[in-house]
Amino acid sequence: MQDALQIIRTAHEMADAARDAILPWFRHADLAADNKRPADFDPVTQADRAAERAMREVLARTRPQDAILGEEYGATPGSSGLTWILDPIDGTRAFLCGAASWGVLIGLSDGEKILYGLIDQPYLRERFEGGLGQAQLTGPLGTRPLQARTGVGIDGALLLTTFPQIGTPDEATAFHRVADRVRLTRYGLDCYAYGLLALGQIDLVIEAGLQSYDIAGPLAVVEAAGGIVTDWQGGPAAKGGQVIAAGSAELHRAALDLLNG
Amino acid sequence: MQDALQIIRTAHEMADAARDAILPWFRHADLAADNKRPADFDPVTQADRAAERAMREVLARTRPQDAILGEEYGATPGSSGLTWILDPIDGTRAFLCGAASWGVLIGLSDGEKILYGLIDQPYLRERFEGGLGQAQLTGPLGTRPLQARTGVGIDGALLLTTFPQIGTPDEATAFHRVADRVRLTRYGLDCYAYGLLALGQIDLVIEAGLQSYDIAGPLAVVEAAGGIVTDWQGGPAAKGGQVIAAGSAELHRAALDLLNG
Repeated sequence: MQDALQIIRTAHEMADAARDAILPWFRHADLAADNKRPADFDPVTQADRAAERAMREVLARTRPQDAILGEEYGATPGSSGLTWILDPIDGTRAFLCGAASWGVLIGLSDGEKILYGLIDQPYLRERFEGGLGQAQLTGPLGTRPLQARTGVGIDGALLLTTFPQIGTPDEATAFHRVADRVRLTRYGLDCYAYGLLALGQIDLVIEAGLQSYDIAGPLAVVEAAGGIVTDWQGGPAAKGGQVIAAGSAELHRAALDLLNG
Repeated sequence: MQDALQIIRTAHEMADAARDAILPWFRHADLAADNKRPADFDPVTQADRAAERAMREVLARTRPQDAILGEEYGATPGSSGLTWILDPIDGTRAFLCGAASWGVLIGLSDGEKILYGLIDQPYLRERFEGGLGQAQLTGPLGTRPLQARTGVGIDGALLLTTFPQIGTPDEATAFHRVADRVRLTRYGLDCYAYGLLALGQIDLVIEAGLQSYDIAGPLAVVEAAGGIVTDWQGGPAAKGGQVIAAGSAELHRAALDLLNG
């Protein structure tokens, strides 16, 4: 792609702007959470909104021809055929708790595939990036290539997810057919789980009930690291819903068989 | 206490030594986990053992008169009446996953109470410290006083724990009487949950099946921040078992009532 470098620069500029918008609110006593969905607790804060606005300002200035789909401010049309898919804070619940598993998610779609994506953790100063020839983590210890781990069977796998209830009761039952077989299951990691998969630290991420903006950035990062991301039927995952990410094709197949067993 | 300053200096020297011993192993491909308890998965690594040895070397040099109780190397007698209680890596499962909720725990007991404690997160460069006149977080953004949050009722509380299964089925049932009432429950935080309580970010931590080395350091940190740490009957928590930590006396009482309802 001709303007790959300019796209990557724009994505980093957006992530930098989101960092600057969010960090002053992290662990700040005046942070207030509104509830977007009164039936349970789906919080949004000033930090979510400020970060999405900051990213949209970068795009308005540098790439006004691209469309935008953002969690907080919805869809903005474009003419280039490219759409930026933005989640200003994935893991707002973790953010409210002061834990650092939340992240800024940026994905770029051409309507068919996610071409590029990043997961940024501002407090840790870590940025996972994948696509358009990139596959790396940049952080306080420098830059490290991303490479998913292979050769781990289901019995040795480390599995991460966010909520113990997963989604519906049927989805939870399917999840636990996998969880009961793996070496270790951990909860509460939000988007950071996909970064750890791309780093080769863990082997599986399984979630349900995702939106497209929850998965676009992570999908590009994991695929660039050699991992596999699909829905629970093995089809495309970019629209969200039920998502499974695995470090290898063999492990992906074994986990899919259990999910659908 | 006459030698409070020397004790505090020793604790920091121990935490520094543990950091140096652990960080080279964090996210290292050669890290290997032995399983201490084959029935499930209770991992221990080279990093756990190296960190406890490093802390014991500091004590042997600077305070050989004190007793030691460490997770990996057991009890060493002393003559001063003081015992250092050490968990070189609390949250070894998180450590294996590459997540940063694990920590180095150091507590100092006089046989009656925990006088001083700290929770150190080497990768985040964060150190929560409490007791002997101290109550602070030192981290990449500088030093911040610790102060638990008050004035939050059970319906507004943020609750953290490590494992969704909590402990026995009865313990899980009791836990969920609280979890069903609070605003938000999150999992997977290990010792870092107590740091977030002492920071005033969250309101409750409820766990079961703890050992004394899991709670000595966190207990001193939370109490120094004005929080309350007891067992589920409201008695002393320093021996471990069922532990509840709360930001205020009112919230502690409300949560105890639900646990025992």
